Amino acid sequence: MINVSQIKDAHERIKPYIHCTPILKSTQLNNLLGCELFFKAENLQKVGAFKARGACNAVFSLSDESVPHGVITHSSGNHGAALAWASGLRGLPCTVVMPKNSPQAKIDAVIHYGAELVFCESNMRARELTVTNLINQSGAHLVHPYDEYEVIAGQGTAALELFTQLTYPVDVVMAPIGGGGLLSGSALVAKSDEINYLPHVIGAEPEGAKDAWQGFKSGERISQFSPETIADGLRATVGLRNFKIICNQVDDILLASEERIVEAMKLIWSRLKVVVEPSAAVPLACIMEEPEKFYGQRVAIILTGGNLDLDQLPW
Amino acid sequence: MINVSQIKDAHERIKPYIHCTPILKSTQLNNLLGCELFFKAENLQKVGAFKARGACNAVFSLSDESVPHGVITHSSGNHGAALAWASGLRGLPCTVVMPKNSPQAKIDAVIHYGAELVFCESNMRARELTVTNLINQSGAHLVHPYDEYEVIAGQGTAALELFTQLTYPVDVVMAPIGGGGLLSGSALVAKSDEINYLPHVIGAEPEGAKDAWQGFKSGERISQFSPETIADGLRATVGLRNFKIICNQVDDILLASEERIVEAMKLIWSRLKVVVEPSAAVPLACIMEEPEKFYGQRVAIILTGGNLDLDQLPW
Repeated sequence: MINVSQIKDAHERIKPYIHCTPILKSTQLNNLLGCELFFKAENLQKVGAFKARGACNAVFSLSDESVPHGVITHSSGNHGAALAWASGLRGLPCTVVMPKNSPQAKIDAVIHYGAELVFCESNMRARELTVTNLINQSGAHLVHPYDEYEVIAGQGTAALELFTQLTYPVDVVMAPIGGGGLLSGSALVAKSDEINYLPHVIGAEPEGAKDAWQGFKSGERISQFSPETIADGLRATVGLRNFKIICNQVDDILLASEERIVEAMKLIWSRLKVVVEPSAAVPLACIMEEPEKFYGQRVAIILTGGNLDLDQLPW
Repeated sequence: MINVSQIKDAHERIKPYIHCTPILKSTQLNNLLGCELFFKAENLQKVGAFKARGACNAVFSLSDESVPHGVITHSSGNHGAALAWASGLRGLPCTVVMPKNSPQAKIDAVIHYGAELVFCESNMRARELTVTNLINQSGAHLVHPYDEYEVIAGQGTAALELFTQLTYPVDVVMAPIGGGGLLSGSALVAKSDEINYLPHVIGAEPEGAKDAWQGFKSGERISQFSPETIADGLRATVGLRNFKIICNQVDDILLASEERIVEAMKLIWSRLKVVVEPSAAVPLACIMEEPEKFYGQRVAIILTGGNLDLDQLPW
């Protein structure tokens, strides 16, 4: 298992390489929704996403002996770019398997950071099968995009930083769920003794990719499904380790429609003046679906990333 | 006249109301342009622009006796919203005269902050005439958008903050020029004894609104001209006080084409993950026009604002 002390270790390990991203606020947004929102802007993180944290921690946790043939992963985009970037810092070769319907900006980033790129079909089975075949050929070390403790610990450092930046307690911490790396890491921090109050931790998922929601409500993890959502970063199936932590530590998972996700995304762009990808807008979209649940509360949201094709905006 | 001590006073005065905005960096952008860029993200400032600083300082510098009938201004948008916001903090009525071709987002902001809005033609003569007529009727106090020492002092606080945030010296500080409030305030800081080295200060102007450039090169201020540029925030004529300071303290003014401004704007969105309006992209556009001038240098750029219509992007 894993707890907050590994997340603190991860933070010490990755600090020299990552940004401490700012907290953004908007009075207009607060007035509009009737709650006080704090946005941790991980879209301003290295490689434009919180994924830099987990990949960096995983890469720098590996012994030299375990990576004679470099590292490999499958990713809808941001983890791929993050692993390419982090392995570059350590001088390791890197291969990234990506669904062929990934946004061009994310494909370009993986290439830019110098990884070898292999395309596959857009489902978990294809992603995992392609990676397994490549590992059998090359002997590369798999750094899973979320179902791995070093990755979860790395992602948890965003929440760790968030709590040191907040000047007073929040009622709720929200993060989107794709594979569940960020949400599980955030929950481990929020529910630990490090925080001397007990914020609710709420996951946010698109209705078109609600495998984590279904699993959370039924107690049974969904292992295969076909996501249909604009939130390309959340099309993954929630991981085994992540699901366990989420069931133990997360208070609820909420859903948002596609229309609401686009509306929330545009609101973030126009009010916070930052570029976020659709996945990053899902927590705000969930609040917009049921604002009465959040009236008068202080809510911290992790804005997960800002990588998308500026020529293909959904409005 | 004015010097850095008024700017320090202004900073103390406005600190409770404004954000200390972050400095953004992008390794990819640095590699692309061959210099090291530091972006002071004033698009993340209150009202989405550095203009909050000058308006706030002006409003809180006024005695109760001088504003029995509130305040008034003319503005291409951001100063209007800023004055509406700042006068609201002090409970003063506010009127804003805006060119009728201002972006809808800027018009909406002025209304949102509760000011009375009056439209005029899009030239300086119409702006000034309309304001004069309204002052004659109402007795409101004019807070000029840039040609006023309290406003210049307020805008200068962005550079003051910038220098405390930089961990090592920069070779160049760049800001766009509309009326010259930000550039003159920045120059007063950069060339003061507060900074124990002597960075170059460079203004950036669109080719389609190069009145400051013409004045700077000829030594004679241009008082009337017809700007044609996408950079709606820079369509104003450089002010008298601003021109004097710029001639004394600024090292050079560079120009950028319309195409380059749009290219720079898109590059900022995609690499820095922040929403900036066209005016904010002009300094980067100037570097892209002549990158050889900046090779190997450390350059700080003030990103002035992020207010624009997301439904009408120039790409």
